[in-house]
Amino acid sequence: MCELLGMECNVPTDIVFSFTALATRGGRTGPHADGFGLAFYEGRAARVFLDPNAAAQSPLAEFLRNHSIKTELAIAHVRKKTRGHVTLANTHPFQRELWGRAWVFAHNGTVRGIKRRKLGRFAPIGGTDSEHAFCVMLEALRTSFKSYPSKRTELREAIAEIGSELSAHGTFNFLLGDGRALYARCDTKLSHIVRKHPFGHATLTDDDVTVNFAEVTTPKDRVAVVATTPLTVNERWTTGAPGTLWVFEEGALVASLPSRVRGKRRTPHP
Amino acid sequence: MCELLGMECNVPTDIVFSFTALATRGGRTGPHADGFGLAFYEGRAARVFLDPNAAAQSPLAEFLRNHSIKTELAIAHVRKKTRGHVTLANTHPFQRELWGRAWVFAHNGTVRGIKRRKLGRFAPIGGTDSEHAFCVMLEALRTSFKSYPSKRTELREAIAEIGSELSAHGTFNFLLGDGRALYARCDTKLSHIVRKHPFGHATLTDDDVTVNFAEVTTPKDRVAVVATTPLTVNERWTTGAPGTLWVFEEGALVASLPSRVRGKRRTPHP
Repeated sequence: MCELLGMECNVPTDIVFSFTALATRGGRTGPHADGFGLAFYEGRAARVFLDPNAAAQSPLAEFLRNHSIKTELAIAHVRKKTRGHVTLANTHPFQRELWGRAWVFAHNGTVRGIKRRKLGRFAPIGGTDSEHAFCVMLEALRTSFKSYPSKRTELREAIAEIGSELSAHGTFNFLLGDGRALYARCDTKLSHIVRKHPFGHATLTDDDVTVNFAEVTTPKDRVAVVATTPLTVNERWTTGAPGTLWVFEEGALVASLPSRVRGKRRTPHP
Repeated sequence: MCELLGMECNVPTDIVFSFTALATRGGRTGPHADGFGLAFYEGRAARVFLDPNAAAQSPLAEFLRNHSIKTELAIAHVRKKTRGHVTLANTHPFQRELWGRAWVFAHNGTVRGIKRRKLGRFAPIGGTDSEHAFCVMLEALRTSFKSYPSKRTELREAIAEIGSELSAHGTFNFLLGDGRALYARCDTKLSHIVRKHPFGHATLTDDDVTVNFAEVTTPKDRVAVVATTPLTVNERWTTGAPGTLWVFEEGALVASLPSRVRGKRRTPHP
């Protein structure tokens, strides 16, 4: 299993505080020592920092903790491998271009038998079930819409639907970004918080670090953070109901879509 | 205009020495201060470090100079913009997946009127002529072969052909990687060197740095380096003839294909 971290905001925001918690779980307070990745969006483009080494010991993770890169949308992942070797090709988040946008995906869980699902335009580079699932998802979107949908509700519903469908293969918690929104699916375990005015203090669960957000924000700022488990001890996080797809835009939860599949199968899909 | 740097080897090799020279040209000894990128392959996967800031001042470039990442294939670029704003989306090298492989591309020159060329499966995320040309190239390969060609000579010839065709739009020096080979096209300016036993000393043109390669190699090692202009003062670099596509595999020049287009047009393509 792995841990996920996503951030989506209405102003460019530094992810260092939350990433510090995640990186600590990547081999120190948590067992997720099989690589990590952190994607930052700038408009429709993303840059993805990847390292197949443990985040807690990685010089790259240290660099990212020490150098503020502000972004409105970030997706991070620390890996504890269940399927696939520890290689760069198997390191989340994965990235593909669709409709002239970078799509970034990170997964927590295992989707069994997914490799029997037919691929279309997108093919996995590595050997994980996660990347295969990402390719199947993007193909489903590509065949549903000619271009990036102007009706965003339709896109959200399509993502919720393919997410529910693929979750029949096992456990499918994921974060997906398209440069405009963060789509966060809770299958078994995912929490979120929206920080906004009046901002308070927060202390990390995994490290002796406290931030007073009031000092680093303006009253108009809104920052949504999603994580496998809450990252702070003194804030109120919302736990996801199984099967829910949350959609965040401009730092706000703009949609919360229920699961589309009743009586989810736990056996491999034919 | 920009500067290109590529490295292709038969053993994982550190690119720090050559990248130091390139990064220096990115805003100090050269005017290429509009961002830089450095892609490292590991098998069929690549990780691409991108920064829209000047390499000579970038903390990320400093990190990459100070932390050895060994690879058999790397592609780097420092940008002096001619077309497109200074943004992450316009920062080379560009990356796309085709046939379950990461393809990485960096361009030096300007290809005018290229945006009138029809796109297929691949679409640019940013606004450069370079990324548009990359998308057109990949689409040409995709429609020529069902999967990654087992006959590599056919793939090389296809790359040489589309390279020559697109060079009719202007200046098309490029580096292209597929995880197995480095394809380096000289249109107006490109040099290469293959370092092999017996290894000697080399001193950078742009910085007071000397390396004795004999100390960091074994007699079996072979390292090919390609750059817009030679990076060292005391080695013999080979200058490309206009229109040539060099192909490097396992640290050796395995093919040198001449231009396919006679009487190249210098005016925009209809």
